[in-house]
Amino acid sequence: MTSHNTLRTQSHLRVALFGAGRMGEIHAATLMRHAGARLVGIVDAHRPSAERLAAKHGVAVLEEDAVFDGADIDAVIIASAADSHPDLILRSVAGRKAIFCEKPLARDLECVQSVATVVEASGVPFLLAFNRRFDPDFTALAHRLQAGEIGAVELAIITSRDPAPPPIDYVVKSGGLFRETTIHDIDVARWLTGEDPVSVHATASALTTTAMRDAQLPDTAVLTLKMPSGAIVSINNSWRAAYGYDQRVEVLGEEGMLKLANLRRDGVTRLGASGTWNSNPEPFFLERYANAYSVELDHFITAVRDAQTISPGVADGVKALRIAYAAEESARTGQSVTLG
Amino acid sequence: MTSHNTLRTQSHLRVALFGAGRMGEIHAATLMRHAGARLVGIVDAHRPSAERLAAKHGVAVLEEDAVFDGADIDAVIIASAADSHPDLILRSVAGRKAIFCEKPLARDLECVQSVATVVEASGVPFLLAFNRRFDPDFTALAHRLQAGEIGAVELAIITSRDPAPPPIDYVVKSGGLFRETTIHDIDVARWLTGEDPVSVHATASALTTTAMRDAQLPDTAVLTLKMPSGAIVSINNSWRAAYGYDQRVEVLGEEGMLKLANLRRDGVTRLGASGTWNSNPEPFFLERYANAYSVELDHFITAVRDAQTISPGVADGVKALRIAYAAEESARTGQSVTLG
Amino acid sequence: MTSHNTLRTQSHLRVALFGAGRMGEIHAATLMRHAGARLVGIVDAHRPSAERLAAKHGVAVLEEDAVFDGADIDAVIIASAADSHPDLILRSVAGRKAIFCEKPLARDLECVQSVATVVEASGVPFLLAFNRRFDPDFTALAHRLQAGEIGAVELAIITSRDPAPPPIDYVVKSGGLFRETTIHDIDVARWLTGEDPVSVHATASALTTTAMRDAQLPDTAVLTLKMPSGAIVSINNSWRAAYGYDQRVEVLGEEGMLKLANLRRDGVTRLGASGTWNSNPEPFFLERYANAYSVELDHFITAVRDAQTISPGVADGVKALRIAYAAEESARTGQSVTLG
Amino acid sequence: MTSHNTLRTQSHLRVALFGAGRMGEIHAATLMRHAGARLVGIVDAHRPSAERLAAKHGVAVLEEDAVFDGADIDAVIIASAADSHPDLILRSVAGRKAIFCEKPLARDLECVQSVATVVEASGVPFLLAFNRRFDPDFTALAHRLQAGEIGAVELAIITSRDPAPPPIDYVVKSGGLFRETTIHDIDVARWLTGEDPVSVHATASALTTTAMRDAQLPDTAVLTLKMPSGAIVSINNSWRAAYGYDQRVEVLGEEGMLKLANLRRDGVTRLGASGTWNSNPEPFFLERYANAYSVELDHFITAVRDAQTISPGVADGVKALRIAYAAEESARTGQSVTLG
Repeated sequence: MTSHNTLRTQSHLRVALFGAGRMGEIHAATLMRHAGARLVGIVDAHRPSAERLAAKHGVAVLEEDAVFDGADIDAVIIASAADSHPDLILRSVAGRKAIFCEKPLARDLECVQSVATVVEASGVPFLLAFNRRFDPDFTALAHRLQAGEIGAVELAIITSRDPAPPPIDYVVKSGGLFRETTIHDIDVARWLTGEDPVSVHATASALTTTAMRDAQLPDTAVLTLKMPSGAIVSINNSWRAAYGYDQRVEVLGEEGMLKLANLRRDGVTRLGASGTWNSNPEPFFLERYANAYSVELDHFITAVRDAQTISPGVADGVKALRIAYAAEESARTGQSVTLG
Repeated sequence: MTSHNTLRTQSHLRVALFGAGRMGEIHAATLMRHAGARLVGIVDAHRPSAERLAAKHGVAVLEEDAVFDGADIDAVIIASAADSHPDLILRSVAGRKAIFCEKPLARDLECVQSVATVVEASGVPFLLAFNRRFDPDFTALAHRLQAGEIGAVELAIITSRDPAPPPIDYVVKSGGLFRETTIHDIDVARWLTGEDPVSVHATASALTTTAMRDAQLPDTAVLTLKMPSGAIVSINNSWRAAYGYDQRVEVLGEEGMLKLANLRRDGVTRLGASGTWNSNPEPFFLERYANAYSVELDHFITAVRDAQTISPGVADGVKALRIAYAAEESARTGQSVTLG
Repeated sequence: MTSHNTLRTQSHLRVALFGAGRMGEIHAATLMRHAGARLVGIVDAHRPSAERLAAKHGVAVLEEDAVFDGADIDAVIIASAADSHPDLILRSVAGRKAIFCEKPLARDLECVQSVATVVEASGVPFLLAFNRRFDPDFTALAHRLQAGEIGAVELAIITSRDPAPPPIDYVVKSGGLFRETTIHDIDVARWLTGEDPVSVHATASALTTTAMRDAQLPDTAVLTLKMPSGAIVSINNSWRAAYGYDQRVEVLGEEGMLKLANLRRDGVTRLGASGTWNSNPEPFFLERYANAYSVELDHFITAVRDAQTISPGVADGVKALRIAYAAEESARTGQSVTLG
Repeated sequence: MTSHNTLRTQSHLRVALFGAGRMGEIHAATLMRHAGARLVGIVDAHRPSAERLAAKHGVAVLEEDAVFDGADIDAVIIASAADSHPDLILRSVAGRKAIFCEKPLARDLECVQSVATVVEASGVPFLLAFNRRFDPDFTALAHRLQAGEIGAVELAIITSRDPAPPPIDYVVKSGGLFRETTIHDIDVARWLTGEDPVSVHATASALTTTAMRDAQLPDTAVLTLKMPSGAIVSINNSWRAAYGYDQRVEVLGEEGMLKLANLRRDGVTRLGASGTWNSNPEPFFLERYANAYSVELDHFITAVRDAQTISPGVADGVKALRIAYAAEESARTGQSVTLG
């Protein structure tokens, strides 16, 4: 029996997915629901993971080479381990596959810059998956700022806290708090203000676990970005918010303030003898940005098919990472770092 | 080319959809995403509507007879005009198709009761689509009540207001406020308290439009249900909530209160010189209960396949309607009506 | 040494206070702070109470006769036991003392009506202390309704719940839930809508304590008032709100809704692993209406001195009590009661 | 006739008030209501102001010398122009009058330190009027932190924004944003964490008015304080919050977060076609800290009479000012300043 889906096959974007982990699972499910794309197969260095996810959706397990050699893949989603990103990006560019890439572009700044140069020169469609840019609430905030609802921006507070630190091995490998977590907030700062900072200052502490304290790896930090307009953005991060995933933004402008609240897990309130109780913010990014992931991939699929501009792109990744590196330096030296 | 979906075909529930209107569209989209069901085709008296929705999802347009004659349909969704419900239910029972039915069962109480008798005698799986029963917030509230979080229920306030009255022709045909809107709240009252009322009192007014006032058709009403335990449920309805679709419940028990807030359209707050603004509650049921529709159909599909109990069933529809009729009588006479 | 206060003595309203209980204490403290009045002395049948409160404020303990015989008292505050009210009112009228009277006017409706007739005929200034009328939030709501902010009123929900029932002896003596608690909400309904109901329906239960259940004394009730305009007011009462004193109002009009939230005990929120906690509503009326008591007495003092209109007056007390009696009848019979 | 107040005269704290401006008015009114103190007279360089306020409360206008020469004044409230503070403090010390002093102690750091040395050596009771320390919500937060409700503090965000900048002349004279506004938040940081910062970093901009921009006087700033424990405090200030006086604190600890909301002007919410509207935060400090002023003066009066410890004291003023100066330096140089 043939499926009702075959009618639409011709115009589908044919997508291969690298990475069968948490983000891979989300993207696979989104692809399966999307009328404009078809998940062709899944690649994962850990083959049982690839097999499990492929079986769930009735698609093939693919070898990496098969993705790049043939002509039957239009686009790739790179959601594999960070180490693999530069190579997969470069092979995708060579094979003219549109690229949807989870951060980071690469582990170190030099490599990031060389990958970015290649991507930009190639003209291959590229989306860097900064999820906040696709969240309905963040998007509403951005539109209302751009519409001038509170006039010129003067001060912004970005609160971004994880419920718990990652395992210390992962922290070391990923480059730590600034490159792993803060980089999202730096991108939000650039996006919402429409400016690139002229300087950054960071203060950081290692507080959450014995391992983090012993290694003096920052898990708590405050950044100050000064923008050319004079607007100031303050970012605060922690890897220990006992109450869940804390994602708030407030922007003060000449004529008032716009702010984003956390999403609560449910809408039930209990009033009892010992107080009034509400549910907490969502536990972590998978729940908080569930909608964003879907919008993000839809933007990619639609933009690739219709040859529209894709944003954020590779340059946004480079800029955010450069600021994250400068913040690391500031946290080490205690001094502000001027940005070029 | 064969679809990746064919692997799962054997275990799919094969579903025919009656009605290509707003609810039909929602159910069709949910079916297309559901791994355990397959939308075989769509029936609508207005054939262009059926064709449009069928084309959207790449499925067939079916004739009514074709649904009931063959063996290749396991279940039907009845989301067509209310007049067609009794006949479609009876034909489905005869054809042993599992039935997912939007309210009402039928227009008048006698017909409802005779349809219900047939359904119950047949043992054919039947779900009456009272959407609140599947909303995550309502469900959380119900579970927490059952878990005894506030002890025995003493008082409940159910607020249920539409943004605007339906067209007057529809009001007349549908039986009006109590049978169209209040019936949901009556079902919520029964569900949350686990009791059937011993009496109902209703007060109603016609206030919203000239047409409603001239015809003295209620668009604003307050009901009081008294439960055998002594718990009192107060329902308030309006067809003119300028701020959107207002769906709140609060339940007071021996040890405190549980309450449900409205869902807001977004999480952005603006503070300006003239005050602090938040977005309104969702505009209407399609947005407010979007999740519920999906959970509801999933419950039906899963329960039919696994031969589990389905709830709410046909008896819930009969009981709620009987109370709605009693409320109409009370609103007319001004007197409480005792329920058997 | 003479006090700095003596300079203002001539223009002071000289006030005697009947009742050194909770309300008496509040009114005494307010008087002591008020530049336009002077607390001359305190009367209480239980002399040690009078002495204690008089000593606290450095004022005299007075005999009842002394208050009415001389010319050095301008006004009385009647905050003594309810039984004493009719007689104190009548003596005050006879002595031409302005009267600030806590509810009730009297225990039974006949007596209330005859007292009211005497007061109204006399022209003696009279304030019936319905505290909600002086609360800043209730007042803001009333003004905004009158200003037409939401157009014509269509539906109002008044929630009024005490943390716990009074001692059963007090319940019996005071006439019970409707005359003790609901009467405030009835007055609020009249005040906010500007209408007198054409009918009332009440449903009541005895749920909170064994004593209340055994005596079948209502502690949980829902009232429906229908207004001449068609507007419907729904009042819900309970004497067991484990979370404190619950005082909310919402009014739905043609163009939207105005609602009053409870006052919280403090503005601190805690987010922890087990949820988000806020403080509860204020524990009871003394805390919730602390401001109202001060505004109320100021209104009385100012209005008496400047010969302005005082509201609410004795007629408001009569009207509210008549509706409360009708509600009692309705709760007994289950039938609506038409009001003249 | 003698007043009822004279009975208590002996045990009254006899207070002279310097300054008949806004804060003077508040303190005078509080004194008049306080059972443990007596306002003897008012001094103001602008005699008509002193006369107006003295007449309002029926007290004397005093000459400065009269306050210090005699033995009939126990305590002074210094709420006069900032320039006068050092001299009044020193004269009060010489005259052994207990001192309630509005900030600043003096205009420049050297003078502040020498005044502080004298005060501390003298043992004269001294309260520096940092109002947040007496606000019920701030106090509740402090107590709950001290009680360990969220474990060790890791991160705090202090938001403190005025509705509009002061006149530029005042800004210049008062030393500007850091010494005028931020100093309160620095004190809050010290108080809530129980630590003195090891370093401070500040970023500031001049954004609100042409005058401020032309003079490059900061009106928008972000400070980062690093505490010895590793806890980080982020302070954000603005002199242009179009929605009122924004005073919020949130403290993140090992086990969760405690946060303070703004006080709203009223508890009325309106839901209309264009959204849900609440009242704004209080307009400015007089309204927001009305309660705090009363608690503050009561603490002073009680502590002086009972010879209890007074806090915050002169040393708190010195420490906060030193940090404010360091922040000014940091804002100028862009570099963190290490604190001794």
